[in-house]
Amino acid sequence: MASIGIVGAGTAGLHLGLKLLAQGIPVTLYSEQEPDAVRTGRLLNTVTHHAPTRAREREVWVDFWGVPELAMKRLSIHVHAPQPFSVQGRLSDPSLCVDYRVYQPRLAEAFVERGGRLEILPVDAVMLEKLASRHTLMVVATGRNGLTGLFPRIPELSPHTKPPRVLFAALLEGLRMPQPTSMHTNLIPGQGEVFESQIITRHGRVPSTLIEAIPGTELAALISRKRDDDPAALDASLLEVMRRFAPATYERIDPTEFGVRGPLDFLQGGFTPAVRRAWAPLGEGRFVMAVGDTHVTNDPVAGQGANGASASAFALAHAITDALLAERPFDEAFCRDTDARMWAAVAPTTHWSNALLEPPPAHLIDLLVTASRDTFVADAFVSDMMIPERILPICASPEATAAYISEARTPRADLLAASGALGWDTGTRIRPLAG
Amino acid sequence: MASIGIVGAGTAGLHLGLKLLAQGIPVTLYSEQEPDAVRTGRLLNTVTHHAPTRAREREVWVDFWGVPELAMKRLSIHVHAPQPFSVQGRLSDPSLCVDYRVYQPRLAEAFVERGGRLEILPVDAVMLEKLASRHTLMVVATGRNGLTGLFPRIPELSPHTKPPRVLFAALLEGLRMPQPTSMHTNLIPGQGEVFESQIITRHGRVPSTLIEAIPGTELAALISRKRDDDPAALDASLLEVMRRFAPATYERIDPTEFGVRGPLDFLQGGFTPAVRRAWAPLGEGRFVMAVGDTHVTNDPVAGQGANGASASAFALAHAITDALLAERPFDEAFCRDTDARMWAAVAPTTHWSNALLEPPPAHLIDLLVTASRDTFVADAFVSDMMIPERILPICASPEATAAYISEARTPRADLLAASGALGWDTGTRIRPLAG
Repeated sequence: MASIGIVGAGTAGLHLGLKLLAQGIPVTLYSEQEPDAVRTGRLLNTVTHHAPTRAREREVWVDFWGVPELAMKRLSIHVHAPQPFSVQGRLSDPSLCVDYRVYQPRLAEAFVERGGRLEILPVDAVMLEKLASRHTLMVVATGRNGLTGLFPRIPELSPHTKPPRVLFAALLEGLRMPQPTSMHTNLIPGQGEVFESQIITRHGRVPSTLIEAIPGTELAALISRKRDDDPAALDASLLEVMRRFAPATYERIDPTEFGVRGPLDFLQGGFTPAVRRAWAPLGEGRFVMAVGDTHVTNDPVAGQGANGASASAFALAHAITDALLAERPFDEAFCRDTDARMWAAVAPTTHWSNALLEPPPAHLIDLLVTASRDTFVADAFVSDMMIPERILPICASPEATAAYISEARTPRADLLAASGALGWDTGTRIRPLAG
Repeated sequence: MASIGIVGAGTAGLHLGLKLLAQGIPVTLYSEQEPDAVRTGRLLNTVTHHAPTRAREREVWVDFWGVPELAMKRLSIHVHAPQPFSVQGRLSDPSLCVDYRVYQPRLAEAFVERGGRLEILPVDAVMLEKLASRHTLMVVATGRNGLTGLFPRIPELSPHTKPPRVLFAALLEGLRMPQPTSMHTNLIPGQGEVFESQIITRHGRVPSTLIEAIPGTELAALISRKRDDDPAALDASLLEVMRRFAPATYERIDPTEFGVRGPLDFLQGGFTPAVRRAWAPLGEGRFVMAVGDTHVTNDPVAGQGANGASASAFALAHAITDALLAERPFDEAFCRDTDARMWAAVAPTTHWSNALLEPPPAHLIDLLVTASRDTFVADAFVSDMMIPERILPICASPEATAAYISEARTPRADLLAASGALGWDTGTRIRPLAG
């Protein structure tokens, strides 16, 4: 019987494995670490899962944190322009932010409970060849052990040649969380972006931050101190970041308590986003596919990395299932076709992430300003900006943006009907307002 | 602010805690063991969660194993009468069987992720008094450390004075699992009952058994050997049990591989079911409530223990919420009213469990025989027997059973409509059958 081998038990590998399993296909996941080692290890990131990813999670029945109290329902965008302004919107379909040290081990457990095989085994290029003889198809879903190097970078799709941002992500203490769960985004022209969010950890919901600094800026200097050298100095720098660049967050800080939660609860660094070919030849006429970070990395500015990885993992799962049903071989033609399907799934996240790294065009600023004054536009915009395939066409031209604003401004028919039901017309005014 | 303290992180304590948390009430769970100790410990039982419990799990968003492949969709009942017969039915709303070493730690993690407090602390009667001063109300949901003794047994509701069955439960190996997931029940007059099921463990789905032997019988002798003395001898006895008393299971056994899976994967023993008062006085005018096994224990013959515990935990959660909203004190009147609500929730499980320990009345045998010949009746019966409040009135009298059979035999209107849509009438027969 056909079986699929997946190297890497991150989000892409897990979503692929769970989807294949749900389609009745035997899967072995090769992971370098026991789930328990992930659980007690260093923060992996502070990624948010948006509506399309959450729909896929429901599809494979891993929406384990869907309880309404935990969902992220609001997004505020603070633009630190000479005339500062803020957009505050409600998400039509809430997002969810779970610590990957909770998320990935939990999904790995579900994978095993459902009959998937999990083998703890570091896989390098030599081992990959060996495993290829055990399985119908191998998929690489980890950047470890040099496997990413098998898949050539595609320069036309990879505009970055160095890290576009200096990054800092952490779980925080000494910061009172807003109610309900909501994200604060600060856009600071010429410096970068500061995000505040809340994340579900194994100790409950805690505040978190992601800071994206343009290299060479003051903001970059503030987040580049090595925490391990002097934790208190880094905490002081973070406080300064919040005071200057995230005032809506700073208001809720207790300076005497504020800082990174624990010694493993932060990440510092940077990377160069890249798009790679999703396949590579192995020996004996076999091929291997890449998915997730092995295939595409995006700067986290749009919060889309995991969402793109999940989308392309599902595209790959569908391609594998189609090929097995059609008894089509996993040859180079399969690889090329599947690469195209996967790129179609992930490309919007790459385009939107790259767009957000550049200064916004005038019509996008118009949209933000309008949204700051009109809650209809704000709710529509914050909901749509979580979904790259929706927001990209909206921002594609001044005309498209103008049409979007015009449509979003028109109160929806169901709301109008509700106001009718309340008697809001001149004929039936409630008495104190009549006349 | 009000807060509730719960001693015991078993299913009753967890369902109560999660339900209170969902209603915005702060909860602390006191557990003797870390979730990880439960995960790697001895088998706790092989309980099945039926439709009403699964609905409560969805209500507090802990339906973590709801993926359709894992659900128990069929039930076979083999009656070992002089003229043996079998009932094979499909469950209208599938049941689910999860190893509590997976289930309880997972729910404890969800409880903490959602802001519940979990303290690892053994609680005896002295500590209970101390904790009572910290919380608005204490609830005992564990039989450990002598706390059950606080709640007097109610003789009128507790017909048993000694264990009605010798019990043996285990995870098995060397037994091919049926597809789809299904339960086999063997009713052996004069000996007891042998159940085969499949259970979701942290190693995937595995076969399991529960054997209920009437004391003093051959079956009791076969399952009373101490496994620790001679594992191979016990495995041989189990094989003999399956050969003689569970032939539909025995067919799928490989005798060379058959036996208990691991040294912690079984339970042997017995207990005397009891109903206790759900409350007790503490010092300083305070009271403590009991829930789950502390309140009511049922023989596992009906597979209803956890289902009753969950139902009464939700009844208690509603009573606590009502009292807090009404600013009513947690006094003796509250205890008496709440005891009545909880008993109403759990009583059907006790009555049905006790009924199944007795030889069935003639009209129930009629129902079984009819179900063995009529799939409409079989599907209705196996679905309804999972839900005590449904099956009890059906079995309450020969007239009620006869009415039920008559109604179940009538094909449902929607099926008739479907057959109409297919053209199954004399006027429009498909050609090869016309005439």
